This record gives sequence, C-alpha cells and structure tokens, in this order.
Amino acid sequence: MNDCLFCRIAAGEIPSTKVYEDAECLAFMDIGPVVQGHVLVVPKQHFANLGEATDEIAAHLIGVARKIALAQVKALGAAGFNVITNQGAVAGQTVGHLHFHVIPQFEGRAHKWNWEAKPYADMAEAAALAEKISAAL
Amino acid sequence: MNDCLFCRIAAGEIPSTKVYEDAECLAFMDIGPVVQGHVLVVPKQHFANLGEATDEIAAHLIGVARKIALAQVKALGAAGFNVITNQGAVAGQTVGHLHFHVIPQFEGRAHKWNWEAKPYADMAEAAALAEKISAAL
Repeated sequence: MNDCLFCRIAAGEIPSTKVYEDAECLAFMDIGPVVQGHVLVVPKQHFANLGEATDEIAAHLIGVARKIALAQVKALGAAGFNVITNQGAVAGQTVGHLHFHVIPQFEGRAHKWNWEAKPYADMAEAAALAEKISAAL
Repeated sequence: MNDCLFCRIAAGEIPSTKVYEDAECLAFMDIGPVVQGHVLVVPKQHFANLGEATDEIAAHLIGVARKIALAQVKALGAAGFNVITNQGAVAGQTVGHLHFHVIPQFEGRAHKWNWEAKPYADMAEAAALAEKISAAL
C-alpha cells in the first residue's frame, strides 16, 4: 500500500487540496482536471477499484460525490456534472485505488465527451448479451 | 411523469431488454451503446437526476451498477468498465430521469474517452475552488 498514490494522499504523506474528509473517505482536487473544479473522492482504505470495494464503501462514496456535485452547482455555478468511476486501464483508470471523479460542467465551456452511440444491428444481439449478464448476477 | 421515457420503461409501457429488476430499480440494455453490452440502471421512482435523488436511492443504484459491471467482466469477458451518471444537458444527460451507465470495456476494442487533463496554471486557483466547494457542503 505504501506505493499507492491515493493511500499516501489519504495518509497525508503527499499533500493534496482537500475539499472534504470523514472517517471513511477523502475528497480533493484533481491536479489534472478535465474541467476546473474537478474533484476526486477516494476511500481511505485501499480498494483497487469499484469491483473490489464493498457495497457499503460504494454507497458512502456516491453519497459524498453527490454532495460535492451539488456544492459545485451551488458554489461554482456549475450547470451540471459528471460522476464517473473507471475500472481497469482499458477503461481509463490510471491510479489503482478506487476513486470517483466529480466533474462540474459549465454553460459555454463544457467538456463535451466523445459519447458515440453505436446502435445494435439487431436487438437480438442486445438480448443475447443481456441474458449472459443477467445469468452472471 | 407519463411522458418520461424511463418511467414508461420502468412501468413496462415501453419494452426494454431487461438485465435486472428489483423493487427499487430496473437495469436494461442501452439501445445506443457506447460499447456493446452497455447497461442502464434506473430507479423506478422518478428522480430527474442524481442531485434530486436520495442518498438511499443513489446507494442502491451504485450497488446494482457494481454487480452488473462485475457480471459484464465475468460473462462477457470485459477487462474493465465505466460507471457514469451525467446531470444536466451540459454534462451530456439526454433523458431527464436519473440513470447510471455501466459500460463494459474490452481489450482491443475499448472506447477511448477524450479525457484531457488541463492542469491548473497555479495551484492557488485549485485551492480557491476547493474552498468554495467545501464551504457549500
């Protein structure tokens, strides 16, 4: 755990610009923001990602992320926000310690995501995938 | 509420390809997937977005999203995933009913997000934003 960047930030060994802290988690400014005001919410306990965390930790973090997002709206004048967690390098995760991104979005200078819908050729394809996912729950 | 697409899907008035359902929420295939296997998790009760929902609903949805993501890994061979909720048109929200996207990501054919870090010119800028957000919590 000593080499984990967010463990070290949570332990105060590496400085951060704190936004919020409680017994379970820490929220601090992302130093490489997608939009200025971008906050990260991390558990103090080390979990590599959402999949390895507990439902209790996930629930706590999403509640804190929600409050921070609403504070971005109230205090910064954000018109909306993205709350995102990425698992795996393939999905864009760059630090191997669970974190939720809370990214404020502002009218006139929003970060526009490359959200490209690629409809199924045939909904039977979607149904086959749904069945597989459902069976693995 | 009758005009709300996801209320109508939750009520079974509009068909969907279901993945999971319980008393509080429904998960179904996004018909415009960013990656094939993309699932939406929505509360049955109408909340316009995360900010208008309760902590309890948010906690329940993230727990279901987590289970679905892990099932995408197990059943579809996903190497990772994104869990995302967008609030406001400015942030990319297109249906005004709270939903979490659970997007599987696969080696060799991942959707690469336009994640552009824009570092602060001066960390005092970040500190000033952190103070404002913190004060509004």
